[in-house]
Amino acid sequence: MEIDIQKKVLEANETQADKNRSFFKEQNVFVLNMMSSPGSGKTQLLCKSLNKLMPNVRVGVIVGDICTRNDADRLEITGAKAIQINTDQFGGDCHLSANLILASAKELGCFDLDLVIVENIGNLVCPAEFDIGEDVKAVVLSVTEGEDKPLKYPLMFRVADVAILNKIDLLPYLDFDAKLVVDNMQQVHPHLPVFELSAKTGEGLEPWLEWLKIKVFEKTGK
Amino acid sequence: MEIDIQKKVLEANETQADKNRSFFKEQNVFVLNMMSSPGSGKTQLLCKSLNKLMPNVRVGVIVGDICTRNDADRLEITGAKAIQINTDQFGGDCHLSANLILASAKELGCFDLDLVIVENIGNLVCPAEFDIGEDVKAVVLSVTEGEDKPLKYPLMFRVADVAILNKIDLLPYLDFDAKLVVDNMQQVHPHLPVFELSAKTGEGLEPWLEWLKIKVFEKTGK
Repeated sequence: MEIDIQKKVLEANETQADKNRSFFKEQNVFVLNMMSSPGSGKTQLLCKSLNKLMPNVRVGVIVGDICTRNDADRLEITGAKAIQINTDQFGGDCHLSANLILASAKELGCFDLDLVIVENIGNLVCPAEFDIGEDVKAVVLSVTEGEDKPLKYPLMFRVADVAILNKIDLLPYLDFDAKLVVDNMQQVHPHLPVFELSAKTGEGLEPWLEWLKIKVFEKTGK
Repeated sequence: MEIDIQKKVLEANETQADKNRSFFKEQNVFVLNMMSSPGSGKTQLLCKSLNKLMPNVRVGVIVGDICTRNDADRLEITGAKAIQINTDQFGGDCHLSANLILASAKELGCFDLDLVIVENIGNLVCPAEFDIGEDVKAVVLSVTEGEDKPLKYPLMFRVADVAILNKIDLLPYLDFDAKLVVDNMQQVHPHLPVFELSAKTGEGLEPWLEWLKIKVFEKTGK
């Protein structure tokens, strides 16, 4: 029974995601969906990325959490407009769904933007199942989480278009094999591009941002 | 619609959880449900705990993952019997439900045990909603995950009977305020017991194990 219900919920979401995709195309805006476990450093990565991308790239952010608007407050310090979605009013949902994204994108005013970044709820499982009409899905994994996560949570790495291995500044203090985690990611998703970086120190940030800017240009011409 | 469906699924789970609780009482076995984000160090904590608890406390483990039996293999090195549940055959479920636990507990043979530890799927959201008939829920948070997680994922900390702050060996290399995270946990759940430890170095392990042994004794007299 539970699986049938899930299927219906996912189908309804897919229909809305297709509508979102048409809307984003009309607005000529690129949408990046950033997903990860709680505490992998998504918000810090976004803050550092926004500081480097703006004002040349006009970016707005939609950020999902069950509770608090901590992340929107942190992101707005960069000067970007940020819309906080709290899912506690929708039963404490563990993912962002396509209908929530469309309403927030309209509130964000995406006709003035080149890039909308969605920071999804910290969860390595459920957000992978919910298409939001994005152009690119990124998964962030931190080096503190262990090398086996791509094998244990394969759907997330299979649907991702790009992976970011964050917190490489901590490598000297961990028993963590960065080559092994990249091999595991690419075992699940052959040729997945992986950027190794530290949002904290800024090391490795540029190649990731170059990759992203090329993707935005390819879609929007901007 | 989605919220109504969730409610029905949760009600069915609650009924099964009550049956599990009766079963565990008949068997005179204590059940601990251990939950956290992916990569917080649950498996390492369990391996170290099992090494110290056994053979005086007879422990069996049920471990949930979407894919792989990596964790069961790691846990069995301690000599404990470990049953691996993979939810990819149930639609890639993001939590362990009560019906899966009963079947696994029977397979584990819990009449011979004092303590069954369930290592839940790495997810700070959904497992908090699914009672499995356990005696105690523990949440593990690692110091790399940020101080705000109890405020952003309040249900998990509200339902937990005990919290473990893991990876304190990394504190010198992080901007992390351990006092603030404990305050945040206890803001969500007043008087929540919190054990600060490093499963890797063993620091702080004893007070946590003493607490657990007392709980097991209180229920089972063993």
